Amino acid sequence: MDPQHESTELHPPTVARVDLSFEPSGKSVRVPTGVSVFDAASWNGIAIDSTCGGHGTCKKCKVQVLEGSVPVGRLDSRAFSADDLADGWRLACIANATCDLRIHVPPLTTRPKAATVGVGRQVILRPSVVKRHITMPDPTLTDQRPDSRRVLDEITDLTENIDPHVLRDLPRILRANNFDVTAVVVDDMLVAVEPGDTSDRLFGIACDLGTTTVVATLLDLSTGTPLAVASMLNKQQPFGADVISRISATMLDPNALDKLQQLAHETLAELAAEVCAEADIDPNEIYEVAIAGNATMTQIALGIDPEPLGVAPFILATETYPTMLASELGFVLNPRARAFLFPALGAYVGGDIIAGALATGMDRDKRLRLFIDIGTNCEIVLGDGERLMATAAPAGPAFEAASIKCGMRAAPGAIEVITIDDAGVHLQVIGDVHPVGLCGSGLVDAVAELARVGIIDASGRFIPEETAAERLPLLAPRLTELNGERIFVLAAETDEHEAVYLSQRDVRELQFAKAAISTGWKLLVEEFGADPSDIQQVLLAGSFGTYLSARNAVAIGLVPSIPVLRIVSAGNVAGEGAKMSLLSGPERHGAAALIREIEYLELSDRADFNDRFVDELAFPV
Amino acid sequence: MDPQHESTELHPPTVARVDLSFEPSGKSVRVPTGVSVFDAASWNGIAIDSTCGGHGTCKKCKVQVLEGSVPVGRLDSRAFSADDLADGWRLACIANATCDLRIHVPPLTTRPKAATVGVGRQVILRPSVVKRHITMPDPTLTDQRPDSRRVLDEITDLTENIDPHVLRDLPRILRANNFDVTAVVVDDMLVAVEPGDTSDRLFGIACDLGTTTVVATLLDLSTGTPLAVASMLNKQQPFGADVISRISATMLDPNALDKLQQLAHETLAELAAEVCAEADIDPNEIYEVAIAGNATMTQIALGIDPEPLGVAPFILATETYPTMLASELGFVLNPRARAFLFPALGAYVGGDIIAGALATGMDRDKRLRLFIDIGTNCEIVLGDGERLMATAAPAGPAFEAASIKCGMRAAPGAIEVITIDDAGVHLQVIGDVHPVGLCGSGLVDAVAELARVGIIDASGRFIPEETAAERLPLLAPRLTELNGERIFVLAAETDEHEAVYLSQRDVRELQFAKAAISTGWKLLVEEFGADPSDIQQVLLAGSFGTYLSARNAVAIGLVPSIPVLRIVSAGNVAGEGAKMSLLSGPERHGAAALIREIEYLELSDRADFNDRFVDELAFPV
Repeated sequence: MDPQHESTELHPPTVARVDLSFEPSGKSVRVPTGVSVFDAASWNGIAIDSTCGGHGTCKKCKVQVLEGSVPVGRLDSRAFSADDLADGWRLACIANATCDLRIHVPPLTTRPKAATVGVGRQVILRPSVVKRHITMPDPTLTDQRPDSRRVLDEITDLTENIDPHVLRDLPRILRANNFDVTAVVVDDMLVAVEPGDTSDRLFGIACDLGTTTVVATLLDLSTGTPLAVASMLNKQQPFGADVISRISATMLDPNALDKLQQLAHETLAELAAEVCAEADIDPNEIYEVAIAGNATMTQIALGIDPEPLGVAPFILATETYPTMLASELGFVLNPRARAFLFPALGAYVGGDIIAGALATGMDRDKRLRLFIDIGTNCEIVLGDGERLMATAAPAGPAFEAASIKCGMRAAPGAIEVITIDDAGVHLQVIGDVHPVGLCGSGLVDAVAELARVGIIDASGRFIPEETAAERLPLLAPRLTELNGERIFVLAAETDEHEAVYLSQRDVRELQFAKAAISTGWKLLVEEFGADPSDIQQVLLAGSFGTYLSARNAVAIGLVPSIPVLRIVSAGNVAGEGAKMSLLSGPERHGAAALIREIEYLELSDRADFNDRFVDELAFPV
Repeated sequence: MDPQHESTELHPPTVARVDLSFEPSGKSVRVPTGVSVFDAASWNGIAIDSTCGGHGTCKKCKVQVLEGSVPVGRLDSRAFSADDLADGWRLACIANATCDLRIHVPPLTTRPKAATVGVGRQVILRPSVVKRHITMPDPTLTDQRPDSRRVLDEITDLTENIDPHVLRDLPRILRANNFDVTAVVVDDMLVAVEPGDTSDRLFGIACDLGTTTVVATLLDLSTGTPLAVASMLNKQQPFGADVISRISATMLDPNALDKLQQLAHETLAELAAEVCAEADIDPNEIYEVAIAGNATMTQIALGIDPEPLGVAPFILATETYPTMLASELGFVLNPRARAFLFPALGAYVGGDIIAGALATGMDRDKRLRLFIDIGTNCEIVLGDGERLMATAAPAGPAFEAASIKCGMRAAPGAIEVITIDDAGVHLQVIGDVHPVGLCGSGLVDAVAELARVGIIDASGRFIPEETAAERLPLLAPRLTELNGERIFVLAAETDEHEAVYLSQRDVRELQFAKAAISTGWKLLVEEFGADPSDIQQVLLAGSFGTYLSARNAVAIGLVPSIPVLRIVSAGNVAGEGAKMSLLSGPERHGAAALIREIEYLELSDRADFNDRFVDELAFPV
């Protein structure tokens, strides 16, 4: 085992998040400690040369650490001279960021044939959007082939189909450009003919359509390079934080579905406009978007009544979506741009999870791996490359700010990391400002640390004040009551700020969530015929999972008790899956295959679910 | 040979057009003398039982002649008792209308499996629009199939594809109707799900999109029965009478194409609304339209620049059109209704001719047959079921009212038939009113009769007045001059009406037209390796060809000199082809096959065309 990794495990870093800035782009990103520079760059739209997909074999992902430090790894010694190493050159894929870094990324040396996306997925570039520069002889009385035939004859290997709208301007465009044009084909359809040679301009937009946050990435499809990334809160927020409240809104108000659809369209359109502007790309040059969203977000964006998703027996309108025009989702791009929507397995295992399973290679990796996307509804996939199973567990609102007394989103002022030692309670606050609330990862840390030191007992109850005063005099003063409820004060009230605390009810909320989730994956592991100790890797997905402390997730029993290094923050895997689907038609077909391959385990009709759930409420001792 | 037919040939009827009225529909139609009652009914939207396609073998097409008389044919004697015959019962397919008739049509006795359209084409009913009534089990936790899968599982033999817009209302419609619905499939796409059982309501609209006249027929696709027919002048008329003037308009004014497209859409939309209203069908129940139009009309209706059609080397934007939404052609029907557009072979052998070739069975009939669609541009197809050739001849404007001094459309007041005998000049006028002008068939009659009696010599010149006075004293006074041009007065000026006459220049216009047309078919026959005398049938198509006197068409050399009974008025074959394409997917594929099979002979680059043209100017002597 890598000695550097072992030391990290023995002495967990006190810093949970680090800031990386990249030159010459000037972009900076904040990532969990320990993430590789390669992954951090890749997730955030910065392209680093690689042909092996970040596995340390191609030695192409050379970067120079300008500020901060990264220890020299074994592979670095082989890849660089002593002088280069002294100058800070490292292989990005094995350079784990444990402190703030400023990094120089050399320009891409070759036009890549593959790109790295998701969790180390190396994707051969075969986008569905294809451009071909063609020149044709002028028509004559002895060569009266129709214009469409003249074009299609030059691209017989690509398609025989032509979008009716292409015909409208075809005669004019061909003649205005002396029959020297670029054919644009998406899937099996000629969707545009552009003047002259535009074959080097090939773009697409990948969208992660989340209930809370929506992210758009503009990709250069000929290199796999992200050219711009933008995100914003889903404009549907006023209709409720989670999918159930959005579905309820459509059931109560006949106009709500139209309004929600409109808001989804506005969100997507604004983000698309933003990434086009940032990358200085004419929106008319975008011929495809890919969208990964959960079933509710996807159906609402299409104006499909989501009610059957919200009530038993939880029925999807459809598992796969026909290819449609991007304009039907509100995008203002090329009018013929297509939209690919990820298929869904069930009402609660939607396109986002399928995209995530694709991006994490759940269909290929031979290790037994558990994929968990933590949220109000928690989606779980288990597989070993041979067999795949999935389920959805109703985690409840613990990870939504609203249900936690001092809860807030992971924004400046949120306590994101909590450690307790002999010196007391240490808080890490986003933005390094005075704490004003507690985000999801802070909640898990608070409960885990308080359980570890004994302020919370195995049943989840705060210990009596007298016991605390006796055993934990340093912490005891923080254990008090507010409005008749017991609380533990994390940050005391000041003249300017209210106190931030953890309440007994907050602990209960988290217990319910973790019990639901662990019941889910345990039943899944049982149905699979495996034992939790067989699991070789746990992938935590979604914005919440990414920032969770692996150690504390194990501590409270949220995830299987395996070495924390095998618990991986997978990042925004839904967005990564969407990127993959743009870059590779074959990978996209993999998404459709997943729908057929994954066995779905419905928990809501299992007689043993409630018993198991109660068993899981306690914290591991 | 049928003695009845022979007698008709020996004594040409003095009446060229007869009126037929049908009970109980109350519809009445005006058709050329000699057309069978079966064809006349079929062309005009009145369904008569038949399984043989009007060939006198099935003996199902029984009708009762209530007024007027039809001689008893040989087959009638076998099909009816003496009493029935005395009561006027006849087989419609052999009952040729030679006088005005009132006819009782019994209701259809069986739900037909085939319908007769075009020129005796028996079409097995296999419409592209298919409805299937389906009932499905309610979803449960153990049967969580998505709504789309639940529906598609019931129609696996029809399609696996679903129009994205169907998804929008699918959850609501299924649940509001207890999963008892009717699936509507067009081609390979589920386009709608209707509440309950609507499988007996299956409709489509066939359109003949002519440069002058546009005709729409609403068909019951489950019986082949036309439920309503409507026609109107193409609203593009103000932009010119022929395709060249419409193309010119788009070249002179950058806004003209949009305007012309808009006018085409308005024409089609109004006609569709009219037939729906007449048949009392909700436009939302129409899921498919089929359109047969020439290349220019089709391209303009789609907003495709027609300029390359109008200038050498005469290039189509496309030969085949992708299936598109009817709404893209301006129709206000079901929003998911599809439009099928007939493919075109060349700029001047458009979808109307392909539809006509389909309706006349040019691809199947083993006889050597010549199909001529007479107009400003004359399209000619020659074939024997093995080999097919086509060409287009620039006939010029002789058949358009505008280029003839007293020319007018075939409307009330138009002289449509002219005969000259010892008693003088006899005119048959549409509407039996005072003559006010000369329509195309009248023009041909006038020239043919005047050439026959010798007022016009073989070169096309009016004979000198002195010669006329000497040889034809009865007619000589009609031969005079007006504004320095020689004319022959057909109807003298009265207090209320101006004179109707034929001018020397009118004769020249017709000579040019007939020379172009006869050069066209003669070159085609030569290229085919045949002799004009081998031709076994001539089919005259289009509204003009339908009303032409076969005898006079032969007389002036417009068509090959074969027995006039072999010269057939084929009716509106473009519209019939459009109907066939709605009633039968296989026949529709036949249209695509025709595009591949027909060899096109381009006349404009033939060195010998002008010499041959000059040779053809004279009238046969």
